[in-house]
Amino acid sequence: MHILVTGAAGMLGRKLTESFAKLGGPGGAAVDALTLIDVVEPEAPTGFAGRTVARAVDIAAAGAAEAVVAGRPDLVFHLAAIVSGEAEADFDKGYRINLDATRSLFDAIRAANGAFGYRARVVFASSIAVFGAPFPDEIGDDFCATPLTSYGAQKAIGELLLADYSRRGFLDGIGLRLPTICVRPGAPNKAASGFFSSIIREPLMGRQAVLPVGDDVRHWHASPRSAVGFLRHAAALDSSALGARRNLTMPGVSATVGDQIAALERVAGAKAVGLIRREPDPAIERIVAGWPRAFDAARAQALGFRAETSFDAIVRIHIEDELQGKL
Amino acid sequence: MHILVTGAAGMLGRKLTESFAKLGGPGGAAVDALTLIDVVEPEAPTGFAGRTVARAVDIAAAGAAEAVVAGRPDLVFHLAAIVSGEAEADFDKGYRINLDATRSLFDAIRAANGAFGYRARVVFASSIAVFGAPFPDEIGDDFCATPLTSYGAQKAIGELLLADYSRRGFLDGIGLRLPTICVRPGAPNKAASGFFSSIIREPLMGRQAVLPVGDDVRHWHASPRSAVGFLRHAAALDSSALGARRNLTMPGVSATVGDQIAALERVAGAKAVGLIRREPDPAIERIVAGWPRAFDAARAQALGFRAETSFDAIVRIHIEDELQGKL
Repeated sequence: MHILVTGAAGMLGRKLTESFAKLGGPGGAAVDALTLIDVVEPEAPTGFAGRTVARAVDIAAAGAAEAVVAGRPDLVFHLAAIVSGEAEADFDKGYRINLDATRSLFDAIRAANGAFGYRARVVFASSIAVFGAPFPDEIGDDFCATPLTSYGAQKAIGELLLADYSRRGFLDGIGLRLPTICVRPGAPNKAASGFFSSIIREPLMGRQAVLPVGDDVRHWHASPRSAVGFLRHAAALDSSALGARRNLTMPGVSATVGDQIAALERVAGAKAVGLIRREPDPAIERIVAGWPRAFDAARAQALGFRAETSFDAIVRIHIEDELQGKL
Repeated sequence: MHILVTGAAGMLGRKLTESFAKLGGPGGAAVDALTLIDVVEPEAPTGFAGRTVARAVDIAAAGAAEAVVAGRPDLVFHLAAIVSGEAEADFDKGYRINLDATRSLFDAIRAANGAFGYRARVVFASSIAVFGAPFPDEIGDDFCATPLTSYGAQKAIGELLLADYSRRGFLDGIGLRLPTICVRPGAPNKAASGFFSSIIREPLMGRQAVLPVGDDVRHWHASPRSAVGFLRHAAALDSSALGARRNLTMPGVSATVGDQIAALERVAGAKAVGLIRREPDPAIERIVAGWPRAFDAARAQALGFRAETSFDAIVRIHIEDELQGKL
């Protein structure tokens, strides 16, 4: 099996790529070739025995998508995206990458489908950002996508393209609306959602973290390990079970900030919790108020997608996967 | 007020344009200039005292959208579209007009917004084709858009762009999901939905009509007069009442084919009904099975949008508006 990953240098792209070396391909398939692309050259995974081509590519550039799919990968993970904050700050860049490059990629696959009967499984990383308030406490699978960010609009458009191209038989697509990934490893970033991870990650390393919202703020989380699991599960899924609705809200853990802190205390003790400094930020509180709090991800559950069932598990997974199991 | 209408040579575009001559602008505004564009040169409305510029324009062509909005119309009705059947038959043409031209138009308005502080009210003709089965008997305002045609996908994408460009302040948009327009005047066409109109229109002229589906098929209808009313009402609406959800399902009449025929009999007698020839067509029955049957258009109703309340009224309006009131 030949696998293409766009956005392969990102957090999720790296973990997904590493999983091929460790676990093989989705559904137990043997992986003999990887094509890894991103705006910076991705690293080849250590311990992968097959052929790896890793390239820095601007997939929105003319001809780039055609070149990327010229090797006709059996499986395409389209993870490349301009993140929420940047897509909001730079309107043109967001649409260029999140919409135009996505469409170029799908069109390049479609062209090869028409010319060679090529039909790739395409797993598209969408986001719960396709939803915007007001919504019910628990959002069902039939709820409308009315995003409140340009990033969310671009992901929702990607979902529509994926479904239409799949319906027409140009590709075999599955879109996954990923929860907020928590605990994100790495340095704190400027994303409005960053505190959900930093209030866990930083105290676990003995460092202070700032909490800009109240303890009652509820949100939808899954670990990086679950996110990789979603992508791998989607890749091996029988898509006939999906019908025409190709985009699925992924399961997750609905937790308040208070629940997160209580989980941190249970796993790492009161000293860790003491490193969280409350500094309410009305701007962040306003943004977060428009975000989803919980989902009934019934379709994805029925199709075998699994996330953690408690925030304690999310904290423990971070310790296992990022801190070598040590506090 | 300067008004731009794209798709001005179409059935709805012509009726909307005529309404400016008869009734003035939306909300009682005086109209001093009309810009009418379509793939064929639209006719200037008779009896309009203001300045009319009517042009055949391919709005998807480079620079065309900029030229079209160069006169900075206060109000833009974007009706131009490749219809459902053609968008399904010609994938590239459908995306070129229904997606690319829509985005070009919005981007041209956005560029003028950035350069001159120009901010147009944009009324976008969307469609109930954004919905695809399975759905509940009555579709509410929060239901997901999962189209089963490329046309529906393109309209759903147009809705997302309209909402995002409005949220960013580039334009002031309202999208209307129009019901199936019934009774459509003119010659029978090859659209799968054509029979909904032809089984009324043709018998009223003493001609036979073919009914390819069963009497129990239920669908969502509004007259051309209501559709023009929706567009005019949207143009004058206070958009602050919409919040971020800029796209509205329009009210209509939920009627079975049996209801339609009973209304025809009440209005025009048994002889008219005798001209309907039942010729079941499994292909059309299959297509129609995926279409919406009824909506709870609560938001639009609350915002003052009004359709007919019976199919009898739809038949009578056709007789008044297209047959000079005569049977």
